[in-house]
Amino acid sequence: MSINKQIHLVSRPEGAASADNFRLVETPLADPAQDQVLVRNHFLSLDPYMRGRMNDAKSYAKPQPLGQVMQGSTVGEVVASKHPGYRPGDMVVGAGGWQQYALLDASVPGVLRKVDATRIPLSAYLGAVGMPGVTAWYGLTKICQPKAGQTIVVSAASGAVGSAVGQLAKARGCRAVGFAGGADKCAYVTDTLGFDACIDYKAHADSKSLYQALKEATPDGVDGCFENVGGVVLDATLARMNAFGRIALCGMISGYDGHPIPLQQPQLLLQSRLMIQGFIVGEHMDIWPEALAELGALVAGGKLTYRETIAEGIEAAPEAFLGLLKGRNFGKQLVRL
Amino acid sequence: MSINKQIHLVSRPEGAASADNFRLVETPLADPAQDQVLVRNHFLSLDPYMRGRMNDAKSYAKPQPLGQVMQGSTVGEVVASKHPGYRPGDMVVGAGGWQQYALLDASVPGVLRKVDATRIPLSAYLGAVGMPGVTAWYGLTKICQPKAGQTIVVSAASGAVGSAVGQLAKARGCRAVGFAGGADKCAYVTDTLGFDACIDYKAHADSKSLYQALKEATPDGVDGCFENVGGVVLDATLARMNAFGRIALCGMISGYDGHPIPLQQPQLLLQSRLMIQGFIVGEHMDIWPEALAELGALVAGGKLTYRETIAEGIEAAPEAFLGLLKGRNFGKQLVRL
Repeated sequence: MSINKQIHLVSRPEGAASADNFRLVETPLADPAQDQVLVRNHFLSLDPYMRGRMNDAKSYAKPQPLGQVMQGSTVGEVVASKHPGYRPGDMVVGAGGWQQYALLDASVPGVLRKVDATRIPLSAYLGAVGMPGVTAWYGLTKICQPKAGQTIVVSAASGAVGSAVGQLAKARGCRAVGFAGGADKCAYVTDTLGFDACIDYKAHADSKSLYQALKEATPDGVDGCFENVGGVVLDATLARMNAFGRIALCGMISGYDGHPIPLQQPQLLLQSRLMIQGFIVGEHMDIWPEALAELGALVAGGKLTYRETIAEGIEAAPEAFLGLLKGRNFGKQLVRL
Repeated sequence: MSINKQIHLVSRPEGAASADNFRLVETPLADPAQDQVLVRNHFLSLDPYMRGRMNDAKSYAKPQPLGQVMQGSTVGEVVASKHPGYRPGDMVVGAGGWQQYALLDASVPGVLRKVDATRIPLSAYLGAVGMPGVTAWYGLTKICQPKAGQTIVVSAASGAVGSAVGQLAKARGCRAVGFAGGADKCAYVTDTLGFDACIDYKAHADSKSLYQALKEATPDGVDGCFENVGGVVLDATLARMNAFGRIALCGMISGYDGHPIPLQQPQLLLQSRLMIQGFIVGEHMDIWPEALAELGALVAGGKLTYRETIAEGIEAAPEAFLGLLKGRNFGKQLVRL
């Protein structure tokens, strides 16, 4: 009988999350029951939203239960199946969790989906052609609603979501301006992803300096904002927004690890007649086919660039996740299982 | 030659506005030139937005110039006219300013409009059947988009805008809950205006207590918020909002006199997938006819109740305005000129 290595959540963070919150657990592997599929997970996706689930607090997602496998999206290969729709060798994307093997009930909608790994790399289904890409597509096209010639600002611009936002904005004739942490990430955002400008938020000691840098990068103001970070970055962007600007609120990672960060100047929402919409892409399943069609075609055609940081082995998942919360990853953070 | 008494802005506030910022000026009255109409103003409308214009800061409206008549909406009677569309005796609503007489160019769109003062009291054109009423109508119907059975919360509920919001919400089958300052105002909001509940924000020393009171008044949570006040009232309401709630951001009077008040928990926008839209009703002229038709019919039919606080004489305008900023008025604040 094979052994399945898993990462469990064993305690909730008080303040910053730490490695102590996780534990490596080895469990025997069971055979699939009726309708179940056994998947050998190849890649695990690490995403900022997981931090929220570690708290036992009201949020859009239910808290991650203690003493159970950390939930998360995976891609992998079917190794055994008692569901007529899946055969060994099928490549699948699903909710496999932080573990080497997942036993999934394929009869539950949304749990498992076959993918074509010949034209698109398997790992891309966790990034540009998966939830992060669709998140970018939804927030940009449905909330920001950019028009050619407008300026779109996105934070965490080198990340899985942000990099897609900027490239989709450029494809729509917009000026794309990013925020990222560090000169390397900023160079990647402009030189490789093709953004018009990228601001290194770590190079600015205070919000005034950050605002000044944004002002220089956005001579015509900001029409749309795709927000992943919150805090001073969002404050600076709001202060630079044109009348009737639109803000897709996707994440506020700067406040996940500890106290929420107040919005310093909410009166700007009134003065500039701004619209903010918080969203979760899983609540808008109707747009996934259209989004995945565009994203898949762009990736297959080499017109949507993305970058991955891959941690090796399930044991590395907790540290990789903690690094993601601190912005240590460069592009989509994955774990090879 | 007659004398026209006016109130000029002579200095900008540092912190709270004060009577020193205003000066009473007497000027000789001129005859109308071609296309001009001379109006004897009967009532001046005092509105919170005027506080923003006293500052020399970027906002949606241009600053009120120093050394000139304070701008504002008025109703009155034409006493002389060199425009073919107006005759002496016509009752008009227009941008007459803080003065007894106004010389207005009737050929400029939006400056002057004849009204029927037989079915609707003249002063109502500055309130329920004027800008405040249309503001309520726009924010509620176009931004909050209430459905029967939902809960709508409105701050400054006894005021010109708030009182209309709640009554329009009740007419649409909603539960209407207000915030107002003091037991008298709250009793008026529930007993006369017909709101389901009203919370006296002055009776709650801290935000926790305010939230608890709102929780008791909104057993099914809050679906729509019409915000006139901001600060702790908005913080409490956001914390009580249901998923996909909608917030019409009309005013933030709590922060007008001094420093802007931060929004304490912006992460709620994300967690509850809320939408906030700042707006100014003057930018949505297309909806005025529909809104005024509903509001006028309701007032003429006695189905939309409103209350006025009337200061006597142009000399009383500055103190009445300062009182408005502190919530000393009860209903629509007017000055009889």
